[in-house]
Amino acid sequence: MRVGFIGLGAMGGVMAARLLDAGHELAVWNRSPGAAEQLARRGAQRLQHPEEAFSSDAVITMLADDGAVRDVVLANKALQRAVNKRLVHVGMSTVSVGFAQELERSHAEAGLGYVAAPVMGRPDVAAAGKLNIIAAGAADAIERVRPLLDAMGQKTWVFGAEPHKANVAKLSMNFLIGAAIEAMAEAVTLAERYQVVPKTLMDLLTGTLFAAPAYAVYGGLILKGEFMPANFKLTLGLKDMRLALAAGEAAGVPLPFASVVRDNLVDAIGHGDADKDWSAVARVARRRAGLDDGPPRR
Amino acid sequence: MRVGFIGLGAMGGVMAARLLDAGHELAVWNRSPGAAEQLARRGAQRLQHPEEAFSSDAVITMLADDGAVRDVVLANKALQRAVNKRLVHVGMSTVSVGFAQELERSHAEAGLGYVAAPVMGRPDVAAAGKLNIIAAGAADAIERVRPLLDAMGQKTWVFGAEPHKANVAKLSMNFLIGAAIEAMAEAVTLAERYQVVPKTLMDLLTGTLFAAPAYAVYGGLILKGEFMPANFKLTLGLKDMRLALAAGEAAGVPLPFASVVRDNLVDAIGHGDADKDWSAVARVARRRAGLDDGPPRR
Amino acid sequence: MRVGFIGLGAMGGVMAARLLDAGHELAVWNRSPGAAEQLARRGAQRLQHPEEAFSSDAVITMLADDGAVRDVVLANKALQRAVNKRLVHVGMSTVSVGFAQELERSHAEAGLGYVAAPVMGRPDVAAAGKLNIIAAGAADAIERVRPLLDAMGQKTWVFGAEPHKANVAKLSMNFLIGAAIEAMAEAVTLAERYQVVPKTLMDLLTGTLFAAPAYAVYGGLILKGEFMPANFKLTLGLKDMRLALAAGEAAGVPLPFASVVRDNLVDAIGHGDADKDWSAVARVARRRAGLDDGPPRR
Amino acid sequence: MRVGFIGLGAMGGVMAARLLDAGHELAVWNRSPGAAEQLARRGAQRLQHPEEAFSSDAVITMLADDGAVRDVVLANKALQRAVNKRLVHVGMSTVSVGFAQELERSHAEAGLGYVAAPVMGRPDVAAAGKLNIIAAGAADAIERVRPLLDAMGQKTWVFGAEPHKANVAKLSMNFLIGAAIEAMAEAVTLAERYQVVPKTLMDLLTGTLFAAPAYAVYGGLILKGEFMPANFKLTLGLKDMRLALAAGEAAGVPLPFASVVRDNLVDAIGHGDADKDWSAVARVARRRAGLDDGPPRR
Repeated sequence: MRVGFIGLGAMGGVMAARLLDAGHELAVWNRSPGAAEQLARRGAQRLQHPEEAFSSDAVITMLADDGAVRDVVLANKALQRAVNKRLVHVGMSTVSVGFAQELERSHAEAGLGYVAAPVMGRPDVAAAGKLNIIAAGAADAIERVRPLLDAMGQKTWVFGAEPHKANVAKLSMNFLIGAAIEAMAEAVTLAERYQVVPKTLMDLLTGTLFAAPAYAVYGGLILKGEFMPANFKLTLGLKDMRLALAAGEAAGVPLPFASVVRDNLVDAIGHGDADKDWSAVARVARRRAGLDDGPPRR
Repeated sequence: MRVGFIGLGAMGGVMAARLLDAGHELAVWNRSPGAAEQLARRGAQRLQHPEEAFSSDAVITMLADDGAVRDVVLANKALQRAVNKRLVHVGMSTVSVGFAQELERSHAEAGLGYVAAPVMGRPDVAAAGKLNIIAAGAADAIERVRPLLDAMGQKTWVFGAEPHKANVAKLSMNFLIGAAIEAMAEAVTLAERYQVVPKTLMDLLTGTLFAAPAYAVYGGLILKGEFMPANFKLTLGLKDMRLALAAGEAAGVPLPFASVVRDNLVDAIGHGDADKDWSAVARVARRRAGLDDGPPRR
Repeated sequence: MRVGFIGLGAMGGVMAARLLDAGHELAVWNRSPGAAEQLARRGAQRLQHPEEAFSSDAVITMLADDGAVRDVVLANKALQRAVNKRLVHVGMSTVSVGFAQELERSHAEAGLGYVAAPVMGRPDVAAAGKLNIIAAGAADAIERVRPLLDAMGQKTWVFGAEPHKANVAKLSMNFLIGAAIEAMAEAVTLAERYQVVPKTLMDLLTGTLFAAPAYAVYGGLILKGEFMPANFKLTLGLKDMRLALAAGEAAGVPLPFASVVRDNLVDAIGHGDADKDWSAVARVARRRAGLDDGPPRR
Repeated sequence: MRVGFIGLGAMGGVMAARLLDAGHELAVWNRSPGAAEQLARRGAQRLQHPEEAFSSDAVITMLADDGAVRDVVLANKALQRAVNKRLVHVGMSTVSVGFAQELERSHAEAGLGYVAAPVMGRPDVAAAGKLNIIAAGAADAIERVRPLLDAMGQKTWVFGAEPHKANVAKLSMNFLIGAAIEAMAEAVTLAERYQVVPKTLMDLLTGTLFAAPAYAVYGGLILKGEFMPANFKLTLGLKDMRLALAAGEAAGVPLPFASVVRDNLVDAIGHGDADKDWSAVARVARRRAGLDDGPPRR
């Protein structure tokens, strides 16, 4: 399958490599050229302009945010110029629900297929092809790009025919992670203030009702108090909380927990933790309780 | 071992039965006499007054709240009258941290052993001897009552020598459950407002990062929208959030998530859900988003 | 009028002095004897036991909290022993609504009059007889003690026949003050972060829509960043927020603003501001925004 | 003075009329032509295109939001085309702080004067020339447009040389109003649940510590429970809370009160109150407390 791939960041780079490994013909573009070179050496074609990617069978975008996708997909009329009307665009970026709906309309007007397919997992997970992919779009469009999704992820969770629903689901997941981090932060801080050994508390919860990766992974980071290098930067976490709140606002859904997490992420950024893993927001609870900046005492 | 058991409610009754099964000699007391009769038929001695339970090797209290424990243990000078100075009192009720500290001091003054040992699990779990027991107290006191704990629980998690730490850990756990319920309620409501199928979202989360009992069990209840009969009553959930907040207040720990959950539980009670399972607090998020009172639409 | 006065703290002492000035016959009691001596020199009778105060025409209690009132009024059966059945007890302490209701029932059972009459104003205001008194109770009981209220306050606001309603109104007022302080704290911090001169902002608001004492007085303290000596201690503010939240809980009223203020007061206490004026809670907003501990920069 | 005026909505229309009354030469533009006609009959020149307004001595914009200002001022290069380099643009719309900063830079690059001057007051206040104007910009630019500001407002509050500071101050004010409304809503709901007469409570607060227009005006609306016609629409209130939160986010300032108000405004919109006065957010507190939709019972 001939695939255009736009956006070769930490995630996009390894995802594109998975497609090469699976035997797909790849044409790549990235704002800064370094990442494209590496893939070119492995056989990918390098494109001069992102809109050239839209002359493939499928085009994948994996970009930072609404603005980056808008610049590449909408601003330069890439959709209108696409000649292959069977093209399917797979939007894998985490974008706002409002913009996702705009993309949906734009593709419909241009008569092109569009599948929203944001992912769960970090670069090492992507490199192993073990991403969970949250997809939505017309069933036949999803089927056409299924080989690509299967090459990048271990499982594709389909959320129906309207692409933006995948973005809602993705934001819901990230909101749940943010809430779990905040809940652990408060619980561990309360425990520490009573000189309960945080590790014992964490063993209890991850050994019983909360025996799940979200608690084990982020709880482990909180216990160690080591938030660098960041798996998922705190500023990205704030972006996702903002998108969840905006989605709630547009749909009439108050999200008091998301508001608390948002406020605490803002607090964290003001205290120098912008580039840390977003579980560093746990330091806010500690600081507010008058505890020092170190990890919880063991 | 000769054991006094005070408090034969839904939990206490089955826990006491486990001790009988394990061959211990039981003397029981309950405010309302029905539960005691049943155990008497199985060989337990019925006591006229709760303080008589303190003439055993060990006494277990499994009562509703601070007030009930105070009436039985402190108000009638049961501790001062106890003649067996090797007696260990195992306090398994969920009480406030402040009262737990008072109990700690009272036992120390009376020269008696005291182990706080609140539990995680519901009546059916207790009947199967599969409770998780959160214990703290002097190491030798815990060892003396270990056979009792082993008869009632599948595992005892020890939180050190000061009994009240077990109560802090227990409240932390219940706070985490309350937070997980609220987080799911907000996420599912957001999803539903965008006509995302809630079941697919729940499958995604319990199939990936949140593959844990707390999410599977309470998420399942939220999806079904069936909150009766209550596994854990909403009013009890409110009590525990209040105790967590009070513990935070006494130790200088703000708990913004607990405040949100508390406010929502108050909202739920005002809307007739006091006796439902505490996951019925999910109806608050739905109602605030202008959705009807039914379960999420599938 | 023969008046018993129990509780001669910073407020009670000057209020009792106002009654002496107005020509009433005073019998006083205080836990620590110093304050009573001073009034004795001015003609007041000193009592050995607080229950002796209940042999007057009216008895006023101005004590720290529920516990102090309980010890004096309920624990020693003062009500049952009172022989003058036309006695009216004027409860001026800020107590919980639940306890206020209990007092109401106890007085009714003892056949004694009871007026709840908490006050607004600080010691200097009390010394000038300019308090605002928030009263509730049977109309004839209020009329009988009207001369006393008039001697202590500039105005008595009557909230009906059930005494506890005065306590609800008083807690509502203090909640509104706490909310105004928090709102100003957030606004001033936002302004300062954009290098807006806080004084200009405060001039604008107190010169237009918020031209009221609550904003002028507490806004002034926030601007100066001087919170000592405390007009109203932060720990007392926390007590009142806790009472407001408890009143809401008992009546099914979520109070999200009160929850935020409560959490911030807890934060403030953990940072050493327990004995400062409760407007020092403004330092929490500053600290969370990464600003130093000084006053807002002018 | 020759003045261009862009945006003749409910506010802009009466403000422009004040300038005509004061003898200024007016050239007006509005998206929908009706409002311009009315002013034309009173002597104003009607413009075909908004950029023509930039050939005056001063141009005033009074538009709905960032987008409307962007379309008129930035999108059509109005600034670059302006030939009179002594022109001062007075931006009176309530815009985001981020966009205010962008406008600041754009005017500096174009070498034009720029004064941000959002206003406090409603159409009837504007008609009487009694607005409070919150202004910031270079001192000489402010002086040049002073006659215009004086014709429209009773007082101009100057917040320094950087225009965006006026927008920060304006959003701070609106945030404070939103917080006062929410605080009153919670207090009145608590009172009502205890059958305290809401009117007596409101008399107490507006008669003592909260004797200020914000409390009297919005408190009065809450008491009556009549929120139509809207003085300031709830959706506009939500917009301003969103802008305040965004300003806080950009500057590292958590705003927990603004988050609560935002969530409640979202709740209100979902319950059909989008077009009501924003004090209708008080209905959220009532609804959450299980009270009916009517006004507080008197």
